[in-house]
Amino acid sequence: MNYKIIFQLLSVLLLIVSGFLGAAMGVGLLYGEGAETVRAFFIPIAGAVVFFIMVRLFIWKKGPSFLSPKSGFLFVTLAWIGASALGALPFFLSGSVPSYTDSFFETMSGFTTTGATILSNVEALPRSLLLWRSTTHWLGGMGIVVLTVAIFPLLGFGGLHLMEAEAPGPSVDKITPRVAGTAKILWLIYIGFTLAQTVLLMLGGMDWFDAMNHSFATLATGGFSTKNASVAHYNSSYIDAVITIFMVLAGVNFTLHFKLLTGKFREVVRDSELKLYLAIFFVAAFAIAWDLLGSNYSAFGESFRFASFQVATILTTTGFATADYTVWSSFSQSVIFALMFIGGCAGSTGGGIKVIRILTLLKMSFTEMKYLMHPQGVFGVFVNGKYLKKNIVYDIAALVFLYFVVFFVVVLIVASGGYDVLTSLSGTIACLGNIGPGFGKVGPVLNYGLFPGYIKWVLSITMLIGRLEVYTVLILLTPAFWKK
Amino acid sequence: MNYKIIFQLLSVLLLIVSGFLGAAMGVGLLYGEGAETVRAFFIPIAGAVVFFIMVRLFIWKKGPSFLSPKSGFLFVTLAWIGASALGALPFFLSGSVPSYTDSFFETMSGFTTTGATILSNVEALPRSLLLWRSTTHWLGGMGIVVLTVAIFPLLGFGGLHLMEAEAPGPSVDKITPRVAGTAKILWLIYIGFTLAQTVLLMLGGMDWFDAMNHSFATLATGGFSTKNASVAHYNSSYIDAVITIFMVLAGVNFTLHFKLLTGKFREVVRDSELKLYLAIFFVAAFAIAWDLLGSNYSAFGESFRFASFQVATILTTTGFATADYTVWSSFSQSVIFALMFIGGCAGSTGGGIKVIRILTLLKMSFTEMKYLMHPQGVFGVFVNGKYLKKNIVYDIAALVFLYFVVFFVVVLIVASGGYDVLTSLSGTIACLGNIGPGFGKVGPVLNYGLFPGYIKWVLSITMLIGRLEVYTVLILLTPAFWKK
Repeated sequence: MNYKIIFQLLSVLLLIVSGFLGAAMGVGLLYGEGAETVRAFFIPIAGAVVFFIMVRLFIWKKGPSFLSPKSGFLFVTLAWIGASALGALPFFLSGSVPSYTDSFFETMSGFTTTGATILSNVEALPRSLLLWRSTTHWLGGMGIVVLTVAIFPLLGFGGLHLMEAEAPGPSVDKITPRVAGTAKILWLIYIGFTLAQTVLLMLGGMDWFDAMNHSFATLATGGFSTKNASVAHYNSSYIDAVITIFMVLAGVNFTLHFKLLTGKFREVVRDSELKLYLAIFFVAAFAIAWDLLGSNYSAFGESFRFASFQVATILTTTGFATADYTVWSSFSQSVIFALMFIGGCAGSTGGGIKVIRILTLLKMSFTEMKYLMHPQGVFGVFVNGKYLKKNIVYDIAALVFLYFVVFFVVVLIVASGGYDVLTSLSGTIACLGNIGPGFGKVGPVLNYGLFPGYIKWVLSITMLIGRLEVYTVLILLTPAFWKK
Repeated sequence: MNYKIIFQLLSVLLLIVSGFLGAAMGVGLLYGEGAETVRAFFIPIAGAVVFFIMVRLFIWKKGPSFLSPKSGFLFVTLAWIGASALGALPFFLSGSVPSYTDSFFETMSGFTTTGATILSNVEALPRSLLLWRSTTHWLGGMGIVVLTVAIFPLLGFGGLHLMEAEAPGPSVDKITPRVAGTAKILWLIYIGFTLAQTVLLMLGGMDWFDAMNHSFATLATGGFSTKNASVAHYNSSYIDAVITIFMVLAGVNFTLHFKLLTGKFREVVRDSELKLYLAIFFVAAFAIAWDLLGSNYSAFGESFRFASFQVATILTTTGFATADYTVWSSFSQSVIFALMFIGGCAGSTGGGIKVIRILTLLKMSFTEMKYLMHPQGVFGVFVNGKYLKKNIVYDIAALVFLYFVVFFVVVLIVASGGYDVLTSLSGTIACLGNIGPGFGKVGPVLNYGLFPGYIKWVLSITMLIGRLEVYTVLILLTPAFWKK
């Protein structure tokens, strides 16, 4: 294990995080917050700076560095845990969130773009903390995209997405320029979207603070709102529409946004994952809109407004709320429950199993049927017209299976606290899929504050397992990982 | 498609079914049932005989016959549908079940060994129908074992179980003696178990009729009882113990029973699937027993009695009831819910995903983790010390994925009837996994009578999809199947 480099990278990462902590504090001070805010933010910022200096002085290694797969997985996991542990401090130190467990849960929920909150009164938070809360989303959102699009492939994480098949195989010596270049473009697109949404929300009457926070939470498919009633607070069909559209955009593979930008329109239109993703979105939105028409809403436009928002918020794993879907019909509820097991596209900020994996496994199943009918035939799985190597399909199948194993194990832990089956099932998938709201006691108008500490810790780790594509965290739990 | 042979086989099958119909009628007449019973049974028996004669006279093909994979799948599906359509008639014609939809549901539930019933008052049925109901279980139970152990491998259904890897590859010309021999041994073991359990239940105070019916339902892991309160009716720890043990035995691969009989004790003890199956049973039983101790039961013995019965009945997908688990703690309920997604061993009468598949996919996941840590390594999936070819693992993964796809689709259909999410989820898995009871409105002390006709038909097909290992039925729905 390259512990030196891991520490090195962690210290840089926490330094960057502390920069954003400083920015949030600054905004708070501009809004007239006082010593309380400085105290809450100063300790974590100073801590990160001191940590960086210590690492710089004592264990910094010069020259080119190489990260082994194992070290990569360990660093990525520690990155999210470290950032959450540090980022939780302002909530705790300010006294806004009296328990560190709760503060950690909230921050992990932020960085993993889950959006599950333990707060019942968000509006009581000072602006500095509100902004910091949305910032964890925003950083975690693009963080995962850069990770999955640019870094994981280098670690041999083949089944995660299809970049391997697309890009001319990145070799180790090319790492730095390629990763840096890709990451830069992705960040630029992300910032562009964020600015665009902020402006559009301001045109709808939001002030710049709320507009920016909601844009952060949308583009990251996070779901933290600055309002207790979430997006329902604004009760505006314009704002609902803007957020719905940007949620759907955030759930799309960001490399497709890049292709669109560079005029590769054809490739985008032909993308199988995008087509299935949009098909799921429209079919589910129309089905629910039609289902609610007459019973919950009198006009189709209104019904479609709420249905499409809800489908987008669950499918992309954002988790904003404009309606309490737990009072909708069983059919609509079941559609939403099923969507929780899908998620966004690979290379997007969305969580869940991901559309490409569902698509690949569906194609794999059809291939198996062909073999059953024609045992002597030769069939393969093709996605976007390209043959998928068996080991990639294999990898995807194993990942999805592990996803369900983790799901059932966590359900049992949540249920051990005495929570009913539906709350346990939906709370677990809402955390594992980085969605946020569930059903039962963790419905969209409720929160996760009710759980005892041990369940909050387990759910925090569950969010991380889901966010880091299952393997990354679980691999650390195998004895083989720690062997020389 | 070899339609001639399909008709030929179907006619023989229905003739056999009509023989058992005759036996049930005979028992009813012995117990003093009259013209009503004769009328109810005569038409289906006569129908089967006439059908057989017609086929024999007009389309019977002489000489050796060969069943192509496609024809095999079509025949197997038609066998279960045909037997259920015919076997439903006595319920309907006797007036005991006024609707043919309900009669078909009940019979399909019998032949698929599901045990989900639409009857609220089982005890009102005449003895002939009670016996016929259990007989559908008994025939369907061994029917599926023979199918999976002896017939499916010949159709190239590789991922279904591991016989392919074990047996010296059966070639087509050896079909008849091998299948017939295997089938004969399996039936003998099955009959032996049935007689043994019948005697043991009679020693516990059951009359021979109830003892036989419960043995039929146990060995088939079916779950139909002759009593409204199911096994709880007897309120006997001895009877609970006997049934628990025989349920667990019925959930074991019958080829292991054969090995045990021929003294291959070592192979049995070393069987990985058996070990995992028993481990799941004991861990779950002790966990629930411990969980219920103090709250539901005051002594550990009593708690373990009900817990082990319940775990056995759900894990083996039998579905008998001695307690209403929907009033147990959330933890115990969640354990039971999770067990619903496991099922018995391959080559047993149990339904569900099957332990061997779970085991294989777990091993597959660990193998993938090893690859992530050592990208240059070479790793394989081994079960019982034997290397599993990649395409078998692949097949299993695709099957489990399809299982979940079917699950979610059926959940949406059930929910469309306005049934709550938990009822929809558990009712679907209870039918797909051939279990019987679920949660919510289909809990163990309730029944499926409440559903409207279209849901009953969908659930009937769902039982069949689950029973015939998903592919068999779904493959018929692909256009490719029907192409020349």
